[in-house]
Amino acid sequence: MPVDRTPQLPALRNIATRLRIESVRATSEVGSGHPTSCCSAAEIMTALFFGQMRFDPADPGNEQNDRFVLSKGHAAPVLYAAWAEAGVIDRDQLLSLRRIDSDLEGHPTPRLPFVDVATGSLGQGICAAVGIALNARRIGSSYRTYALLGDGESAEGSVWEAAHAATRFELDNLCALTDVNALGQSRTTQWGHDMEAYAARWRAFGWHTLVVDGHDLAALLDALDEAARTTGRPSMILARTLKGKGISFTEGLDGWHGKPLTGDALDRALVELEGRLGDETRNPAIPSPPPRGGSSSDPVAVETVPPPKYELGSMVATREAYGAALAALGAADPRVVTLDADVKNSTFSDKFERQHPGRFYQMFIAEQVMVGAALGLASRGAIPFPSTFACFLTRAADFIRMGGIGNVNVKLAGSHAGVSIGEDGPSQMALEDLAMMRAVPGCAVLYPCDGVSAARLVVAAAAHTGMTYMRTSRPKTPVIYTEADEFVIGGSKVLRESVEDVATVVAAGVTVFEALTAYDELRRSGVHLRVIDAYCVQPVDRDTLVQAGQATGDRLITVEDHYAAGGLGDAVSDAVAGHGISVHRLAVREVPRSGKSAELLDRFGISSRQIVEAVNAQVGSVASSPT
Amino acid sequence: MPVDRTPQLPALRNIATRLRIESVRATSEVGSGHPTSCCSAAEIMTALFFGQMRFDPADPGNEQNDRFVLSKGHAAPVLYAAWAEAGVIDRDQLLSLRRIDSDLEGHPTPRLPFVDVATGSLGQGICAAVGIALNARRIGSSYRTYALLGDGESAEGSVWEAAHAATRFELDNLCALTDVNALGQSRTTQWGHDMEAYAARWRAFGWHTLVVDGHDLAALLDALDEAARTTGRPSMILARTLKGKGISFTEGLDGWHGKPLTGDALDRALVELEGRLGDETRNPAIPSPPPRGGSSSDPVAVETVPPPKYELGSMVATREAYGAALAALGAADPRVVTLDADVKNSTFSDKFERQHPGRFYQMFIAEQVMVGAALGLASRGAIPFPSTFACFLTRAADFIRMGGIGNVNVKLAGSHAGVSIGEDGPSQMALEDLAMMRAVPGCAVLYPCDGVSAARLVVAAAAHTGMTYMRTSRPKTPVIYTEADEFVIGGSKVLRESVEDVATVVAAGVTVFEALTAYDELRRSGVHLRVIDAYCVQPVDRDTLVQAGQATGDRLITVEDHYAAGGLGDAVSDAVAGHGISVHRLAVREVPRSGKSAELLDRFGISSRQIVEAVNAQVGSVASSPT
Repeated sequence: MPVDRTPQLPALRNIATRLRIESVRATSEVGSGHPTSCCSAAEIMTALFFGQMRFDPADPGNEQNDRFVLSKGHAAPVLYAAWAEAGVIDRDQLLSLRRIDSDLEGHPTPRLPFVDVATGSLGQGICAAVGIALNARRIGSSYRTYALLGDGESAEGSVWEAAHAATRFELDNLCALTDVNALGQSRTTQWGHDMEAYAARWRAFGWHTLVVDGHDLAALLDALDEAARTTGRPSMILARTLKGKGISFTEGLDGWHGKPLTGDALDRALVELEGRLGDETRNPAIPSPPPRGGSSSDPVAVETVPPPKYELGSMVATREAYGAALAALGAADPRVVTLDADVKNSTFSDKFERQHPGRFYQMFIAEQVMVGAALGLASRGAIPFPSTFACFLTRAADFIRMGGIGNVNVKLAGSHAGVSIGEDGPSQMALEDLAMMRAVPGCAVLYPCDGVSAARLVVAAAAHTGMTYMRTSRPKTPVIYTEADEFVIGGSKVLRESVEDVATVVAAGVTVFEALTAYDELRRSGVHLRVIDAYCVQPVDRDTLVQAGQATGDRLITVEDHYAAGGLGDAVSDAVAGHGISVHRLAVREVPRSGKSAELLDRFGISSRQIVEAVNAQVGSVASSPT
Repeated sequence: MPVDRTPQLPALRNIATRLRIESVRATSEVGSGHPTSCCSAAEIMTALFFGQMRFDPADPGNEQNDRFVLSKGHAAPVLYAAWAEAGVIDRDQLLSLRRIDSDLEGHPTPRLPFVDVATGSLGQGICAAVGIALNARRIGSSYRTYALLGDGESAEGSVWEAAHAATRFELDNLCALTDVNALGQSRTTQWGHDMEAYAARWRAFGWHTLVVDGHDLAALLDALDEAARTTGRPSMILARTLKGKGISFTEGLDGWHGKPLTGDALDRALVELEGRLGDETRNPAIPSPPPRGGSSSDPVAVETVPPPKYELGSMVATREAYGAALAALGAADPRVVTLDADVKNSTFSDKFERQHPGRFYQMFIAEQVMVGAALGLASRGAIPFPSTFACFLTRAADFIRMGGIGNVNVKLAGSHAGVSIGEDGPSQMALEDLAMMRAVPGCAVLYPCDGVSAARLVVAAAAHTGMTYMRTSRPKTPVIYTEADEFVIGGSKVLRESVEDVATVVAAGVTVFEALTAYDELRRSGVHLRVIDAYCVQPVDRDTLVQAGQATGDRLITVEDHYAAGGLGDAVSDAVAGHGISVHRLAVREVPRSGKSAELLDRFGISSRQIVEAVNAQVGSVASSPT
C-alpha cells in the first residue's frame, strides 16, 4: 500500500524551491556555472536528502552514512545547496561558489568532507558508486549508495560498464537516478525524453528500472522506497524532468546550458521562485545512520608484511612478485582489496584471489569501471589495487586524472611494460604509462626491477597515503636485492660506483640489467660506470642523481623501456635541472613491433649495446683509450 | 525462402579446417599466440570471406572492397590465414608470425595492406568499424563493413558507445559478429553462453540481432544475408561457438587461452584437423566489388584555404579561430569531416557543422567512439577532426595510443587547455594532454597562441600525413600574427630578440602573453629577454631553441599551462640535451582549483610575475643591477 506523502510535501516543496534559488543566486554571483542543470534536479535532490537518505549532518565522514555521488558534477551548486539545507555548510558560504578562496568549486572535489570522489567528467560518478556500494559489503555496513546521473552522460560507455558490474555484484544497496532533462550542452540529448529508450537499456542490463516524473516529490519518494526494498539487483530511477524547471523562461528550453542568469532575468527568476515558497519552514528530520559497526575496517600495520624469500640470482618476474606480495599484504591488512580486468593470471592478482576471494573483484574487460570502482572503494577506506596490462590502464586515463584531483588512495598496477613483452606486439606494450602517471600530481610512480624490490614496494605503496602506480614487467629477471634492502618512495639504489666513474647510467625495470651488462663490458675496457636503479620514477631521487651526476663528469644517461616523452629521462632531467648536468636519454622513439624481447630491446635502442655506445660517445677519448 | 547452401558447404568446410590448421601451425612455430581463439572463429571467418564479402584480393586498397575489422585482434592468425586462403598473402608467409622481420604481428597492424586499423586492445575495432561504415556514405560507396568481436570484449563500455552511435546513424551497411566462445583469458566470460544476455542488450540498443550456431556455416551465411537485407539499422550476429573448436582436447575447455600447442599435442591436433579435410580443393569465387565510384574522395589542395582576416591586436580565442578555419578547410577539401562530443558550441566545431552539416558527426558524450570512428574514417581516406575539451580526450587515450600504432591520419582537437579556463575547476582543465600526445610517436602536437596561428595550423594539420593534435585555449587572446606569417609543423616564432638577451623564455598558448608581459617589465629594468612562441610542441624546433639558448647565456626558461611532466618543458629539455643549456621549467605542479583565469595562472606559477622572478633568479646580478 503506498505511503501517504501529503504531510511531508509542503516542507519538501519549499526545500526544492530553495535549492533552485540558491543555485541561481550562486551562479549569478560568480557569473558562471549551470543553474538550469540544477533546477531540473531540485526535487530529486530534495527527495534523496530529506526523504530517503540516512546520514548525520554533523559528521559527514561517518562511515555508516548513506552516500551520494553527483555523477552530473556540473550541477554542483544544487549539491552545495542541499548540504547547506541539511546544515552541513553555512548558507552564506554558497555565494563563494567557484572563488579561488572557496572549496565550493565549479565541480565537486573531495576538498569538501561530504564529497567522496571528484566528478565533472561525465560517466564517472556511477563507476565510483559501484565501488562505494562494494565497500559497504566490505565493512559490513547497511549504508546505501546513491548516484545522480545526467541523461547526456548515459552515452558514455563507462556508464554501461558500471551497469554491468553492479548487476554482476547484485548491488541492491545501490540506487542510481537519471535526471532526464532531455537537453545537453549543445542540443537535445541522444534519446531526449524517450524514457523507454533509457528504460529498455537499463532493464537489458539487469537493473530494477523505474520511470517517474522527476518533479513529483511523492513519486520520487515512492520510487526511492521501492528501490530500497528491491533485493538482488541495483535500481535505476529514470526521472523525467525539465531543464531550468521552475523559471518560466528557461523551463525546457534549449540555449540555457551553462549560463548564469543576469540583470533583469535574474530578478524575474528570483521573484518567480520566491513566490512559490510556502509557509512551512521546518525541514523534515534526517534519519540517523545506524551506529558505527565493528572493527572490520581497522587498519593493520602493513609494516608487518614479511619480505619475500627470493634467492639472489634466481629468476622472478616482477609481476609475479607483485602478486605474491599482494597476497601477503592482504593477510596483514583487511582494507586491501584487488580488482582485475580478466587478466589475473597475467598480472598475478590471482595469487591474492586464491587467499582472499571475498576481497577480489573480477571486473571483466572493463577498465573504466575497474578504476572507477577502485576510486570509490578507496574513498571509503579500502586500499584497492586495480590491475591489468599497463597499456590498458590508458583506457581509464580520465578516471586516473579525476582520481588525481583528490589524490585518492588507490594503488594502480600495470604489468607487461614496454617492448620487453616481446611477440604480442605494440598493442600490448605499455610505452606511455609513465608519462600518464607522472602527470598525476602527487602520484608515486614505482618501477621495480627484481622480485625483492617489487614485493617491498607493494608494501610501501599500501603504506603510502595517496595514489601510487606500480609498473611491472613480463620477463623473469634475476633477483639482485636481499631481505636487508630497503625501498622507499622517493628512493633509488646505487648498484655500481667507484671514484673512477666517468658517467652514470640511470635505469629502471628491465633496463637495469642492460645497464649492468654495459657496466661489465665497459669495465673490461677499463671504463668505470655508475649504475643507478631508479625504482621510484616519481618522486625521483633528486639528491642521489645530482650527486652521481656531479661525481661522474656531469654525465647522466637514462635508459628506459618507454617512449622518450614523459618517462624516466624527463623525470631525471627535470630533477637535475640547474646543476649543469647533461642528460642523454635512451628510450623507445618509434612504434615497435612483434619480435623477441631481447631483439626488441636492441632494435629500439635500449639494450646494453646502446648504453655502451652512448657512454663511449659521451666520454669520447676516455673510452677510446682504456688504461 | 532460404537459399540452399548445400553445394557451397564442402569447400567452405575445408577452408574452415585449413584456417584452424594454419592458426595452430603458425602459433606453434613461434611458440606464442592464441590458437584456440582462432579455432572458435574459423567458420565465422570462412562464411564472411568466402560466402559474403565482396572484395578484390588483388587490390586490398580498393576503396569499394567490403571491409573487415578484427576487433578481437588476438585472433590475428586466423585473419592472416583467411587472407592467405584468398590469395592476398603467401601461405608460406604464415609461419613468419610474430617474427621481428615479419609484418604478421601478434595483433593486426596497418603495416598490412588489408588491415585498416590496429586492433588488440579490445572494444576498439567496433568503434573503428562505425567510422568505416560512415565513410562509405561519405564517398557514396555501397561497400559493407564487418567487424568480429569477442564475447569478453562486450564488457568494454566502448562497445556500447559504438552500439549507440551505429543505431543513431542508422548504419545498415554495418554488420558486427560476436564470437561467443564463453571463455576469456582467465575464466568464463561475463555472460558465458547465455546468448539471451547478449541479445537483450543489442536489441535494447536498437540493433537487428540474430543468434546462430557459430560453427554452422549455412546458418552463418543465412544470417549474413539477412543482415545485408536489413535496412535502417545495423545488425549483430551473435554466434555461439566453442573455444578451441575442432581439436578434441581443447574444445570448450578452460585453460587454453593464449597457449600454442607443442609436441605431442600439436601432432594430435594436426592429425585430427587434417583428418577432416575433404576432397573439395577449389575455393568459391569471391564476388568482385562494384567499380570504383566518382570523385567524391578526390583530394583538394588544402593550401588553397585563405588565411583568416583577423586584425592585429583584436581579441580572438584560439578555439574560435580553430572552428572558423575548420569551416573554411571543409569548403576546400571534401575529405575533411568533423566529430564532436556534445560540446560543439565550446570547441566551435559548430562553425563547421553549419557550413557542412553532412560531414559533421554528433557523437554525443562518448569520446571513445568519437575517436574510434575518426580512426576508421581516416583509415579509408577521410581527414577527420574529432574535438572535445582537451581533458576529455584522455577518455580516448587508449584509442589514441592504438591510432598511433598506425600513425592514422586523424586530427585531434582539444579545447579548454589548462588552468586558464578559470572557474570550472580542475575536472575541466587539460593539464596532461601534451604528455599524452607527445607519447604518440610521429604525432605533431600544435599549440597556437592566437587566432592567426590557430587558423594556419588547422590547415597545416590537414596537409600533414599522420596524426596531429591541436590544443586550443578558452580565453580570448590578442592577435599577434598577420596573414604573411607562416606556420609549419616543426616550427616556432622568435617574438623578441636582441644581441643583449640574457635568457630565452619558451612559451606556448596563453603563456606567450605572460612571456611578452614579462619581457616588457624586464625591459623597463634594462634586462633583455628572448621570447619564443613554441607553437609546435612536437616536433619541437630544436635548431631555433639551441641557437637561442646559446645566444642567451645557455639559459632557457619554459612556461606552460600544463603539468610539469611530459609537456613543453620536457620537450625543450630533450631537444637541447647535450648542448650545455640549462632548462628551467615553469609549469603547474599541483592540482589546481576553481578561480579566475589570471588568478590561477599566478597561483600555479606560470604568470608574468613568475617568469620575471625566474629570469632574475637565473641571471642573478644582471637583473639586480639594471643599467
